Amino acid sequence: MSRNIKVGITHGDINGVGYEIIVKALADEKIPELFTPVVFASRNIFEKARKEYGAELPPVEYIKNLSQVRDGRINVLDLRLGDLSLEPGRPTKESGEAAVAALEAAVEAVRTGDIDLIVTAPISKEAVQSEKFHFPGHTEYLESKCVVDQEKGDEKEDLSEAAPKARMILFDDFMKVALVTTHLPLSGIADAITTEKVLDTILGLDRDLRSDFGCDRPKIAVLSLNPHCGDNGLLGNEEQERIIPAIEEAEARGVLAFGPFPADGFFATHAYRNFDGVVAMYHDQGLAPFKALAGERGVNFTAGLPFIRTSPDHGTAYDIAWKGEADPTSMREAIYKGIDILRCRERYRRASANPLRKARMERGGQDKTIDLTKETL
Amino acid sequence: MSRNIKVGITHGDINGVGYEIIVKALADEKIPELFTPVVFASRNIFEKARKEYGAELPPVEYIKNLSQVRDGRINVLDLRLGDLSLEPGRPTKESGEAAVAALEAAVEAVRTGDIDLIVTAPISKEAVQSEKFHFPGHTEYLESKCVVDQEKGDEKEDLSEAAPKARMILFDDFMKVALVTTHLPLSGIADAITTEKVLDTILGLDRDLRSDFGCDRPKIAVLSLNPHCGDNGLLGNEEQERIIPAIEEAEARGVLAFGPFPADGFFATHAYRNFDGVVAMYHDQGLAPFKALAGERGVNFTAGLPFIRTSPDHGTAYDIAWKGEADPTSMREAIYKGIDILRCRERYRRASANPLRKARMERGGQDKTIDLTKETL
Repeated sequence: MSRNIKVGITHGDINGVGYEIIVKALADEKIPELFTPVVFASRNIFEKARKEYGAELPPVEYIKNLSQVRDGRINVLDLRLGDLSLEPGRPTKESGEAAVAALEAAVEAVRTGDIDLIVTAPISKEAVQSEKFHFPGHTEYLESKCVVDQEKGDEKEDLSEAAPKARMILFDDFMKVALVTTHLPLSGIADAITTEKVLDTILGLDRDLRSDFGCDRPKIAVLSLNPHCGDNGLLGNEEQERIIPAIEEAEARGVLAFGPFPADGFFATHAYRNFDGVVAMYHDQGLAPFKALAGERGVNFTAGLPFIRTSPDHGTAYDIAWKGEADPTSMREAIYKGIDILRCRERYRRASANPLRKARMERGGQDKTIDLTKETL
Repeated sequence: MSRNIKVGITHGDINGVGYEIIVKALADEKIPELFTPVVFASRNIFEKARKEYGAELPPVEYIKNLSQVRDGRINVLDLRLGDLSLEPGRPTKESGEAAVAALEAAVEAVRTGDIDLIVTAPISKEAVQSEKFHFPGHTEYLESKCVVDQEKGDEKEDLSEAAPKARMILFDDFMKVALVTTHLPLSGIADAITTEKVLDTILGLDRDLRSDFGCDRPKIAVLSLNPHCGDNGLLGNEEQERIIPAIEEAEARGVLAFGPFPADGFFATHAYRNFDGVVAMYHDQGLAPFKALAGERGVNFTAGLPFIRTSPDHGTAYDIAWKGEADPTSMREAIYKGIDILRCRERYRRASANPLRKARMERGGQDKTIDLTKETL
């Protein structure tokens, strides 16, 4: 790429650790060579954070609109939110509105091409709720934005197939985890696990691994819902009735899906190292072991949308907000991993730009090799 | 202790990795100085395992009864099971019966004092089921053996209080995890979580940490049932209605119980390092992250019984049985950690042998210090 990648970064909840981790993550003189940051923020608060945590920050320019974005510096788009009052550690109406304003501006910017991807600092689910915003989190909000796009746009042959569906993928260098169910009470999980949902998650993760992570033929591990894989029905039948049929259907469609594996044994033997992706049935099953292993290096990626959004895999951390104690590692990883995904996706688009050739390659079974040097395409 | 500790080791399922990990774990010339192994096994199969994996094994003596146990060698008590046929990788009626025979002999031996603790190699839940044995695993079997003891024994003032209740604790050097529910289908977990059960697990773990792990005033973390701790009721009410009341009751009884903590964040921030023990609500919530972190070094301990039993935290591993590929680390840890627990428990018994002194010390609150040098006890 000849031009620098423009990374849009939203400030998140102003009363959380957002500003601190953004400033710390960007506090390196080499940053402007690697990418061009565009921070969606309040000028006053950014200035405060710069004074407290930004001694090593490269040159900063406060800009009023996106046409002023330049390479070689940190561009801070002032959202002109007036005189915000900081209340570190507390979700407030003001902090919620400021978070949503940054998010809206960033989504608009990624659509117009003024930025190439979005990295979001954590928001408070409580503070953001309003008439305008009634989503459990970033993922659902961004999905809704893309559905609106779809409805406004041209007619497609099969809208239901084409409608973008957001998938939360948690990942680090060693593991990528997708969830069949996300924010549900534990008592509602078993009913929510259907063959269709498990299959959708497997197929979706397969597509994401190909297009966004550069895996040619991804190997996907599927965890069981019940302990010990249900012990032949003694501890639940969901494996036999819903999960195994989904794995078999995925296989029938040419996806390398394996399992189900009991979660504890899967992590005990480090089996995840043998797979490109892992499908977990519910939040804590996937995220507790993932985070135990990934520590500060985990990144949250919203897959399946027309644009790329990553974020650190932690929350607002109100208990340590504006105290100088926040670790910027996950934010830094979110930025660099987001750039990696963007590059993967562009390569994949170029590689699959010739539909005839792509059709031929996809027709090949997993045990067939097509010698392209001898084919006339 | 002047005499060597006698560690009884059961062979587990003969078609699994049991013999291999036992022989490999004992294959060190220093073993007879550290403790005296008494392996409950079949002579023929032990001999086969010794030839294949036991080049470094200290002197072995096959014995017919426990009066022949001697320090300075590996004692193999031949269970005289006849001509067992090995079918590596398969649960059989024969392998199940052999596993139960070893277990029964070891329980008898630990009751008579011929061995000091039991370390069990993995059994197949499927193979062991019979009229004599109808338990999901070691833990439940051993508990039932102690309840029978109790009923046969002398009258106690409060039998319900005194009846031993087995608790499964998984641990390594960094974490000790107890479970409120163990082998249940996921769909049944929420209903099974009651204030009483959570409280019992907290109080039980508190006792175990004091008596078996040498913690003076254990700090215990309690995990939430629902993701994000239920998000103020949005994702479930079990935290408010059942878990928090149990934590408060435990606190009222002087136990340092904290939480509930959302499982993913708890492991992400390595918060477990700040606690002596962790109470998880269900199998995969506790064991998937624990095993992800502990790897091969995790040990399973059956707490709450009059005798000590530990085991490796893996199963029969049929897929690699009798192939020379099994890793003996967890078996070795189970032996050494079992010995540590035995020593802790003996020290605790001695320290609490004077009831007057113990009563005085327990009356002290957590912020009081009693200067024993000035007290007249």
